[in-house]
Amino acid sequence: MASPDDIRAAVTRYLAAVGGGTSADVAALYADDATLEDPVGTEPKVGREAIEKFYSALDAVQNTTELLSLRVAGNSAAFHFRVVTDTGEQTVTIEPIDVMTFDDQARITSMRAFWSPEDMVVA
Amino acid sequence: MASPDDIRAAVTRYLAAVGGGTSADVAALYADDATLEDPVGTEPKVGREAIEKFYSALDAVQNTTELLSLRVAGNSAAFHFRVVTDTGEQTVTIEPIDVMTFDDQARITSMRAFWSPEDMVVA
Repeated sequence: MASPDDIRAAVTRYLAAVGGGTSADVAALYADDATLEDPVGTEPKVGREAIEKFYSALDAVQNTTELLSLRVAGNSAAFHFRVVTDTGEQTVTIEPIDVMTFDDQARITSMRAFWSPEDMVVA
Repeated sequence: MASPDDIRAAVTRYLAAVGGGTSADVAALYADDATLEDPVGTEPKVGREAIEKFYSALDAVQNTTELLSLRVAGNSAAFHFRVVTDTGEQTVTIEPIDVMTFDDQARITSMRAFWSPEDMVVA
């Protein structure tokens, strides 16, 4: 099982990639057969290809991310974070709570994002 | 499906019951066949009787709770909160992130608590 330190480092890498990386950078943090449910209640994406496609919106915008709180338990992490997206025309701020599981190499095996559209702040 | 407002109200009731109620009060918020995994990675408790027993430690201490952040998605909630436990000899503060699912009547059908012993602050 990945250690708590490995899991914390993986979350840090994830937020850095969402903030400053490409969709390929983010997808590379996932295991091949990972699942992604964002937001929770929608149909999960399965596999790294579908996951990279999900993150492809990243490639057209500027994001900054900030970790607000992180809890590690077993092979899992739950974390609250802020993502600010500058589309060029407006700034969208959202602060989801994500839950991730990790494999022995601290690759993300599942991600579930808890948020709803009403949590978005557009400026 | 329970509405977002119903789910928010259920989380509020839960924190009030953990703060000022008995183990029976807390267990009454769960569905009959609910599961509880606290912390994540431990063997889940199944059913309201086992769940009430889990919370029985509440009955010997004074707890106060405070909601720090809450996100609702689908039939689920993720929330970060503070629990301060006064055992009479010491004060233990912990700020878990919990994930819950709810049935149509906004009863808790599953609870998973993300925290680790190193997150506890003893004073």
